[in-house]
Amino acid sequence: MLMENFQYYNPTKILFGKDVIDQLCTEASVYGKKCIIIIGQGSVKKSGLYARVLSLMNISGLEHVTFEGVKSNPLYQDAEEAIELAKENKVDLIVAIGGGSVIDTAKAVAMGFYADHSVWDFYLQKAPRPTKALPLLNILTLAATGTEMNSATVLQDTVSGMKKGYSAPCLFPKVSFLDPTFTQTVPLNYTAYGVADLISHSLEQFFGKGDAPLSDLYTASVIKLAIDYGLKIRKDPENFEYRSQIMWLATNALNGTLKAGKNSGDWGVHGLEHTLSVLYDIPHGAGLSIVYPAWLKQHQPQINAKLAFLAKHVFEIQETDEVLAANIFITQLEAFFTQIETPIRLNQADIHINDQEKIISNFKLNKVTGSVYPLGEKEYEEILAKMW
Amino acid sequence: MLMENFQYYNPTKILFGKDVIDQLCTEASVYGKKCIIIIGQGSVKKSGLYARVLSLMNISGLEHVTFEGVKSNPLYQDAEEAIELAKENKVDLIVAIGGGSVIDTAKAVAMGFYADHSVWDFYLQKAPRPTKALPLLNILTLAATGTEMNSATVLQDTVSGMKKGYSAPCLFPKVSFLDPTFTQTVPLNYTAYGVADLISHSLEQFFGKGDAPLSDLYTASVIKLAIDYGLKIRKDPENFEYRSQIMWLATNALNGTLKAGKNSGDWGVHGLEHTLSVLYDIPHGAGLSIVYPAWLKQHQPQINAKLAFLAKHVFEIQETDEVLAANIFITQLEAFFTQIETPIRLNQADIHINDQEKIISNFKLNKVTGSVYPLGEKEYEEILAKMW
Repeated sequence: MLMENFQYYNPTKILFGKDVIDQLCTEASVYGKKCIIIIGQGSVKKSGLYARVLSLMNISGLEHVTFEGVKSNPLYQDAEEAIELAKENKVDLIVAIGGGSVIDTAKAVAMGFYADHSVWDFYLQKAPRPTKALPLLNILTLAATGTEMNSATVLQDTVSGMKKGYSAPCLFPKVSFLDPTFTQTVPLNYTAYGVADLISHSLEQFFGKGDAPLSDLYTASVIKLAIDYGLKIRKDPENFEYRSQIMWLATNALNGTLKAGKNSGDWGVHGLEHTLSVLYDIPHGAGLSIVYPAWLKQHQPQINAKLAFLAKHVFEIQETDEVLAANIFITQLEAFFTQIETPIRLNQADIHINDQEKIISNFKLNKVTGSVYPLGEKEYEEILAKMW
Repeated sequence: MLMENFQYYNPTKILFGKDVIDQLCTEASVYGKKCIIIIGQGSVKKSGLYARVLSLMNISGLEHVTFEGVKSNPLYQDAEEAIELAKENKVDLIVAIGGGSVIDTAKAVAMGFYADHSVWDFYLQKAPRPTKALPLLNILTLAATGTEMNSATVLQDTVSGMKKGYSAPCLFPKVSFLDPTFTQTVPLNYTAYGVADLISHSLEQFFGKGDAPLSDLYTASVIKLAIDYGLKIRKDPENFEYRSQIMWLATNALNGTLKAGKNSGDWGVHGLEHTLSVLYDIPHGAGLSIVYPAWLKQHQPQINAKLAFLAKHVFEIQETDEVLAANIFITQLEAFFTQIETPIRLNQADIHINDQEKIISNFKLNKVTGSVYPLGEKEYEEILAKMW
């Protein structure tokens, strides 16, 4: 099998390290004089980061309005409200301060600002692809989704039970500020969910179509270090070096580096998890650490060679029998998730077997499938059976 | 040691795979209606690629003039001539077809087009950094330097014996077309020099300042596969898959992926090699395979741990004694260069010991040094002694 033809394009500028946000207003000044700040439910106010940003803006004369209240599983309805605020105030750019939910909402605001229809229409594929978006600058406070350096956004509509992703080249952030300091106080459970998320992103692309040896070794590198630092951080949660590594790993897991020579990935696991997080409001990473082992077991006959590759390069397992090595990889991955206390079974997330039908219905409603390993009703039941 | 604060920014769009140049004129149309085509000394005419490009341009109505004659060690004087031609014809963009020398010349033309002084003044650091450059699109025909996806250019002035690098953000190519087909007929010696070049780029950044575990594993991945495919290609030089891997490896070796968390690298070996290629017109990669082993031996006491890391991840050597593992890495690297028939000693490149003084003088003239491992007269002599 050959590499797939591919495009590699990522114009986001990353400024990484301690105090890089001191350059926020210099970078912002390229794009205009007035911004909308988008934040979540107050943690950046408690931490003092929001006040620091306002102070930088006030000193440099960057005008600002703030939208506060993005949920951890972000709603398109909040994005719509923020779009109204941005339009009323005729802003030139967006400054998002937060994790994936805040940045994904900010991307919706970026494209919704120029649209004359509901921003949700983009996600429902009912509107033409946007060619214009407000410039977006991010200050990241949670290492997990990689949205700080890609063109994708995921929002949900709790009313209809739909969670939808969307992507367009105009949604690449202009600049993302990655200061690991701002993640030092993230609790260990959310740190673990972030690590599960970044490992899942790596795996989704690893199981994409195409034979890409460099991307595969890069992927093993990311997963290996995610496991190393995912364990280390538990003993010293404020360690700057460990936080730095996890932050940069999460960005790398979904900035294009791992998918060159493949199609964009399988993404069936994400489809399955999204329906769980819509139904139960569980953290995305916690859902992924439940779904991934089940998905790997379901497809194991087709992916033993790939899993054996990961066993060798991630866990340094020298086992030459492919099936045994693949088994070891799955077992060790589950053991790792358990060590960092992210769930690997639904009951650990308080989801119980009497919900079986409800979950399957939601898989059907969302027409969940993977682009390389298709999923249908039979697979829904078989995979779900492995999550109990 | 921590990661260094760093910026990661690379807006070049890569289109990779068979027949991607069919998209040339669509991509070019974003930037204007008239281009200057820059080519080397005729090989793209012989191969038919030049005619194919002209045909695409004629069909789509993209006007063009051509500058032909870039040397394999490119001269700033040729760039000046091409700048004149570009100015006379009031072009909107550049299409470079060739390897590193052609693209590096095209970058000089891109910035020189807007300058009212010799383009060489940029390289000599006598002119302010350019903020504007002609848009540059490349069709790559040789996997080696990585210039297709970075903002650097290296030219030389044979008269003064100076070879100088230069870099500015406006020099990132807009689009580079990487079709491995165009490298299938590259002779094995130049293929080998390209592999030596990409390994050297990886090493230069590996020896940069800063502790960046992910960049280090990425680097080992690139070198490991460069060695695998560098050997495979010799048995089947037109193999599309092997050519694909080598092409993408060369791009990755110098597009920023390997240096995140480090300063930009050491680059002392490149400094030493540049003076050799100015004096003797030897291919850059052939010079590098001579200089690198000598440089590694010179600095071995300081870099044993790093070399042991490479021994483990590149050659899968399980030796736990750091010094022994480091020795094995250097020996195996030399053995690999020898297997692919790129020289590891000066006499293999017809440079003989009676030139000792002349070479040292040229090191001094160019004030060659590394940014992490400084070089002075003592080191010049000691390293040179290891090249015979």
